Amino acid sequence: MDAVSITAPMGFSATGVACGIKPGALDLALVVAEQPAVTAALFTQNQAAAAPVLSSRASLCRSHLKRGVVVNSGYANAATGSQGMHNAAVMSATLAAEIDCEPNDILVCSTGTIGPQLPMDRVVPGIRAAVPRLGSTPESGAHAATAIMTTDSVVKQAVVQRDGWVIGGMSKGAGMVRPNMATMLAFITTDAIVEFDLLEEVLKAAVDASFNSLNIDGCESTNDTVIAMASHHSDVAPDAMEFRTAMEEVCRDLALQMARDAEGASRVVTIDVAGALDDAQARYLGRLVADSVLVRSSFYGGDVNWGRILGALGTADVNIDPDTITINYEGVDVFSSGAQSDFDEVALLDGMEDGDFAIGIGVGDGRGEAHIVTTDLTPEYVVFNGERS
Amino acid sequence: MDAVSITAPMGFSATGVACGIKPGALDLALVVAEQPAVTAALFTQNQAAAAPVLSSRASLCRSHLKRGVVVNSGYANAATGSQGMHNAAVMSATLAAEIDCEPNDILVCSTGTIGPQLPMDRVVPGIRAAVPRLGSTPESGAHAATAIMTTDSVVKQAVVQRDGWVIGGMSKGAGMVRPNMATMLAFITTDAIVEFDLLEEVLKAAVDASFNSLNIDGCESTNDTVIAMASHHSDVAPDAMEFRTAMEEVCRDLALQMARDAEGASRVVTIDVAGALDDAQARYLGRLVADSVLVRSSFYGGDVNWGRILGALGTADVNIDPDTITINYEGVDVFSSGAQSDFDEVALLDGMEDGDFAIGIGVGDGRGEAHIVTTDLTPEYVVFNGERS
Repeated sequence: MDAVSITAPMGFSATGVACGIKPGALDLALVVAEQPAVTAALFTQNQAAAAPVLSSRASLCRSHLKRGVVVNSGYANAATGSQGMHNAAVMSATLAAEIDCEPNDILVCSTGTIGPQLPMDRVVPGIRAAVPRLGSTPESGAHAATAIMTTDSVVKQAVVQRDGWVIGGMSKGAGMVRPNMATMLAFITTDAIVEFDLLEEVLKAAVDASFNSLNIDGCESTNDTVIAMASHHSDVAPDAMEFRTAMEEVCRDLALQMARDAEGASRVVTIDVAGALDDAQARYLGRLVADSVLVRSSFYGGDVNWGRILGALGTADVNIDPDTITINYEGVDVFSSGAQSDFDEVALLDGMEDGDFAIGIGVGDGRGEAHIVTTDLTPEYVVFNGERS
Repeated sequence: MDAVSITAPMGFSATGVACGIKPGALDLALVVAEQPAVTAALFTQNQAAAAPVLSSRASLCRSHLKRGVVVNSGYANAATGSQGMHNAAVMSATLAAEIDCEPNDILVCSTGTIGPQLPMDRVVPGIRAAVPRLGSTPESGAHAATAIMTTDSVVKQAVVQRDGWVIGGMSKGAGMVRPNMATMLAFITTDAIVEFDLLEEVLKAAVDASFNSLNIDGCESTNDTVIAMASHHSDVAPDAMEFRTAMEEVCRDLALQMARDAEGASRVVTIDVAGALDDAQARYLGRLVADSVLVRSSFYGGDVNWGRILGALGTADVNIDPDTITINYEGVDVFSSGAQSDFDEVALLDGMEDGDFAIGIGVGDGRGEAHIVTTDLTPEYVVFNGERS
């Protein structure tokens, strides 16, 4: 097995075990640093954030040095009140006791159904049983990546090797929005020497350019979390720009794997927006398009429906001038100067019968750009998400 | 035929003819007032607004007295550049010449595919041929209501009779969002004596409580238009509150007909939000829920998925406290005090196997309320909207 996992960087071990939340499946993952690792994280902005999010956010306010993360799948520990907060604290404390650190040195994540309380009579023994199985092999990393899955059909891992240092990552979700399981989790490890401020800044930029540009259902869930830990074990302090590029590469790789695994989706569609005032505005406009149910239904049919894209852009709360908007499908200009362009529709549609395609949108002469990855909306998606949980 | 149409109030005539835009179907409607009628209108906020919207908006700025409206279906005259503006002006001028008034006395609406130019060689003779067929019978009103349809499967008309005065209405669209045909149009006539300020204020309130609370695809199209005309022919000046109530009744009736005719939908779901700071905030929160693809997929399955509703509310850009939120399905409390309530899930789900249902959401102790009408998202909707146009 290739070392494509969170255990590829030096100084980390991981494991995934079946503690009994999900019958017969791995459902509990640990990621542990040998020594306290510099740790940055981003959490959901959802105001109904789950207990583990509240717990981990508070923990990071106290210190940016962490020893590990404990993650369960199956239940989200969301909308679980004070009992849920207590259970998140017990998870941290249990792992801390086993690896001889403080509860505050541990972060906690959950993903799965919103509402039910965690079966702590299984989770606590599960954590204790997992610790002796921690390992730094690719297999150990893969077990962890498997244990965080919910409706994911494939394990999602990525690695970027540089001269003397490595970034590894694993993720689940986003495209895999099954009933009550709308969470994306991602875990990044590196052995590069990176201090907190740089790690946090680079993580934010990489997440904006990857996971935040991934648009499957337009929702931010109660549990979304991205955690990056730097062990410093490589003794190499990379150039900041080089580190930024590598972090983006890992995050984009994971995001694309998530898009490709989107439930019910038949196509991955990329939307490149250019000419906005700044990148944030470009991303906002791209998401307006990618959030439109009508636009995504037209992706399903492989239709060149620029009218719906224009209509979606027109709902923006920033100024848009239809006369300066350009729209292309697969590089073929279909709308410009306020009217439909002259193009060979039959040939273009023929090329879009099946498979992925790319859309380009120009919104002016600004320097703001965004790259959005989305999928088509399919009848299968609705059936899947219409199932009673 | 009952007088349930825009010709029910005195002083108006109407007709619908086939001018040849849509082969073999009525596609051109006229609504004409005997004398200049006090006219108020609301238009789409979409920044890519169609030529007829720009034309009618400008016309209303010049004067609130109008003689008539000319409407075509089949093509939206949207994203059609300066040629589109010219064609909208020609439509107004053609009707004006036939009924002996100024072009500025005429409003114009279009609905249909975005992009193509109108076939003016059919539209102009069509308008001329339609004028002699104007009538004040229910049949004439029904013809107009038919001619504005796009993918609507039924004609939508409503009337409210009061002591000495009448409001009539017709509408199309919103639920009928076929490829490139995402427009809602509504036309209201009354013979009550109502001056412009009151008419406009009452129309805005009624539209907020009806069409703006109707949420089928979350989009505001390039062509959405609601026009109300008051002929004063009844010689009765109603009490303002009574007029407001009647206007809301007509608009709600039309909106409900539109929801019931929603393409591919299998259920109409009402969402009542209470306890917000004000009505606008309640409507915003209700639309957040109704806009969620995940929530609407769960409606399709008849699932009691309060976790998704909570998750959607949590994405609000106003403060939400999950601990004070309550959610009920069909009056059964399923979430309160930050956790799932104790309820008979089997019995509740049994009652929701098929058909419409109602959701109640409490968000605090404010006085703001909203009533949102939406539908489930179905596989049929996606198939329908995925068809190449």
